[in-house]
Amino acid sequence: MLPEHIRSELRAIVGEQYCLDRQEALVAYSYDATPMQQALPDVVVMPKSTVEVQQVMRVAAGHQIPIVTRGAGSNLCAGTIPVGGGIVLVLSRMNQILEIDEQNLTITVQPGVRTSDIHQAVEARGLFYPPDPGSMVISTIGGNIALNSGGLRGLKYGTTKDYVLGLEAVLPNGEVIRTGGKLMKDVAGYDLTKLLVGSEGTLAIITQAILKLIPKPQTQRVMLAMFADMAQAARSVSDIIANRIIPGTLEFLDQGTIRVVEDFKQIGLPTDVAAILLIGQDGEPQTVDQDMEKIAAICKKNEAVQIKVATTPEEAEDVMTARRSALAALSRMRPTTILEDATVPRAEIAPMVAAIQEITERYGLHICTFGHAGDGNLHPTCMTDARNHEEIERVEEAFAEIFAAAIDLGGTITGEHGVGIVKAPYLEWKVGAAGIEVMKGIKKAFDPNNLLNPGKMFAKETRNRVVVNRA
Amino acid sequence: MLPEHIRSELRAIVGEQYCLDRQEALVAYSYDATPMQQALPDVVVMPKSTVEVQQVMRVAAGHQIPIVTRGAGSNLCAGTIPVGGGIVLVLSRMNQILEIDEQNLTITVQPGVRTSDIHQAVEARGLFYPPDPGSMVISTIGGNIALNSGGLRGLKYGTTKDYVLGLEAVLPNGEVIRTGGKLMKDVAGYDLTKLLVGSEGTLAIITQAILKLIPKPQTQRVMLAMFADMAQAARSVSDIIANRIIPGTLEFLDQGTIRVVEDFKQIGLPTDVAAILLIGQDGEPQTVDQDMEKIAAICKKNEAVQIKVATTPEEAEDVMTARRSALAALSRMRPTTILEDATVPRAEIAPMVAAIQEITERYGLHICTFGHAGDGNLHPTCMTDARNHEEIERVEEAFAEIFAAAIDLGGTITGEHGVGIVKAPYLEWKVGAAGIEVMKGIKKAFDPNNLLNPGKMFAKETRNRVVVNRA
Repeated sequence: MLPEHIRSELRAIVGEQYCLDRQEALVAYSYDATPMQQALPDVVVMPKSTVEVQQVMRVAAGHQIPIVTRGAGSNLCAGTIPVGGGIVLVLSRMNQILEIDEQNLTITVQPGVRTSDIHQAVEARGLFYPPDPGSMVISTIGGNIALNSGGLRGLKYGTTKDYVLGLEAVLPNGEVIRTGGKLMKDVAGYDLTKLLVGSEGTLAIITQAILKLIPKPQTQRVMLAMFADMAQAARSVSDIIANRIIPGTLEFLDQGTIRVVEDFKQIGLPTDVAAILLIGQDGEPQTVDQDMEKIAAICKKNEAVQIKVATTPEEAEDVMTARRSALAALSRMRPTTILEDATVPRAEIAPMVAAIQEITERYGLHICTFGHAGDGNLHPTCMTDARNHEEIERVEEAFAEIFAAAIDLGGTITGEHGVGIVKAPYLEWKVGAAGIEVMKGIKKAFDPNNLLNPGKMFAKETRNRVVVNRA
Repeated sequence: MLPEHIRSELRAIVGEQYCLDRQEALVAYSYDATPMQQALPDVVVMPKSTVEVQQVMRVAAGHQIPIVTRGAGSNLCAGTIPVGGGIVLVLSRMNQILEIDEQNLTITVQPGVRTSDIHQAVEARGLFYPPDPGSMVISTIGGNIALNSGGLRGLKYGTTKDYVLGLEAVLPNGEVIRTGGKLMKDVAGYDLTKLLVGSEGTLAIITQAILKLIPKPQTQRVMLAMFADMAQAARSVSDIIANRIIPGTLEFLDQGTIRVVEDFKQIGLPTDVAAILLIGQDGEPQTVDQDMEKIAAICKKNEAVQIKVATTPEEAEDVMTARRSALAALSRMRPTTILEDATVPRAEIAPMVAAIQEITERYGLHICTFGHAGDGNLHPTCMTDARNHEEIERVEEAFAEIFAAAIDLGGTITGEHGVGIVKAPYLEWKVGAAGIEVMKGIKKAFDPNNLLNPGKMFAKETRNRVVVNRA
């Protein structure tokens, strides 16, 4: 509990009803979408403006109180758990779309705007904001920026980082910086914009963003290709790219995921195949038709047992919804669902899926895998029970092996979820000791007193690297 | 002159013939493509490998000797002038294309590879590396990365930063870091890759890069649209974008530039028009044809006096070559040519060009403007004479006003050339005092002893901001 005089300072800034310290409020902001992670804040503060954020930051700096900035809390890396207590700064009241600029093709938003609200607002004007993280219906753009969220369109369109042109952010000393602008080219100094994207609330508090828009694709089509063998599906992915086609969506579901999704949504997925590719293309109608034909031919050549092209927008929507519901479907199976995002170069998907299967069996666990085949971003998802400590230990061991396998294949420990608390012990595996030192230096340059989201990204100890010799 | 024992250490690393300290060698590396900037290094060192770069870096760190890393020296911001003396580290011997990976669509290169050699190598395989800075025939990819080079395709395809997926770099302490990978998604820690891109050799020495490739567009077409009035040309640019067309190229030449280019290249440009737009589209043939028709209609609606569509690849090449020769053509006019790159949001091109004209006239100078209309990246280019001190003072005053005008219009002091020495006094105008402090903190985190490219990016003093009230 913070002393009354500090709570009083905070109340004076945001107003009594936006400064919460009742137990039920503290509990509500003690967790996020990450399983098995919880810590109580001392107070929840909900500012309405950049100036209020600055004032709160100054109070925090004056009393050396940690600040954990938070939107919807839909992240999966425990990125918004207030492990050091202090202030949870909820930006959901800063939820205005400030401008859609059709000449410069930009949208200017506050951090609390929901991702899907951005989609709707710009698509109504024939424009397009591609990043579509799984949580987009509830996630906020501030959270997307803090974590550099990806999604299903990453292969063709990139991730959040590729669309952030400018930021306003409050530094730990309370000062405001403005980076970038409505500019496609800007090389004035170090790129603070891209550095803040993905910095997980550890460097500054993002209070406004200018995002790049592109013209909305005229049309989009989607197909399902079913395979009796994972290797055939992986080869199809490689062949599509080798044929110089970059699909708008190129998703993968393994048999375990297919069965659970079909049970949940009943859209007629065949539950006896080993893998399904969900392949979408968007753009100019003729090009899309050509690409879909070529893609179908490639899948056939790789012995797809069935190819089903969605013929109506409703069918297409069903298929996309089924894919998007994978996490929800899997979550119904057992009390605890751990969704990971080990990522490899696209060409290494088949060996990576094989490694995940081998590890899963060896540890006697239930792990299904789905994800973004086109960009090598896989989501091995473990259905378990947090109350079973022995099993959870096996789960942790298994995931450590999965991360090690990803690194061995030239990949990374996290493609789109972020480091937060849960990946921190593995970060050094990817970036090396020298990389960690550089990152800590950057953190210190922004936040010398470690007030912003302490306990994230940098672990007290790096986990011992698992060494497994694979054939 | 460095003491013999240090030169001896350096010779032992790279071999006698790659450690130059004869006067003529020092002079050859005392300047780059930036006019009126020169400083002698103490020694020129040409390593062949990352290990040699590490060893040189350790010698430099041990004796506190500055290192200025350099490729072709084609930059325009005095980014490679060794103002503090020390070592010029020339990476032109590290010039191997290490791998083209057709499955993952990447190319792995050493920093000394020429940009146009990358273009040729990947296009031969039906792949495409879009960034095409004006200097691409001589520039090296290491220089492009250090400066985040742009080019004519920036509007549709982005700049160098958008294509760098991973880097190997030597830190000022001699350690190597490896960032990113053949990964479309990677959020493991702060994005050191994008931070190093555009860091102008001040944070680390880039020794290897993994670049993203995309499929080569099937076809490309180009047209010229001539306008009697600058405002009509600017309106055409806005209308093209507002019609949801993103051209592959959308360039602008003012009357002064047109006359000089035509005199130089004689390709039949009309010298009596106020502005020419050079508009190209690439992609799938039918889409390209459709877009070209729509673009022509938009230009006609905006009273283009003539529209000339290139009908053969040779004609198209002529047109592109003419645009690319603008700097060379202008350079013939007077002894000194100063090419700037004030950049504004696309919608502000017309007011920006008007401001440049007004300032040029008020200072009695000869400034022509051309550049990348589609991304608001203009190149006001002054033909002057460095020996005429009175005129050079007026040139400096005029450019200061031009930068201020760009900032006032929501723009930046440099869109693609970098800060180096020449823009350093203006950097604070764009990023603010707080932004400068953050950037200095980052510099210190990487390079606490200020050994890498000292004297760049951060000026001893910020220039006083010009305040002009415009109608």
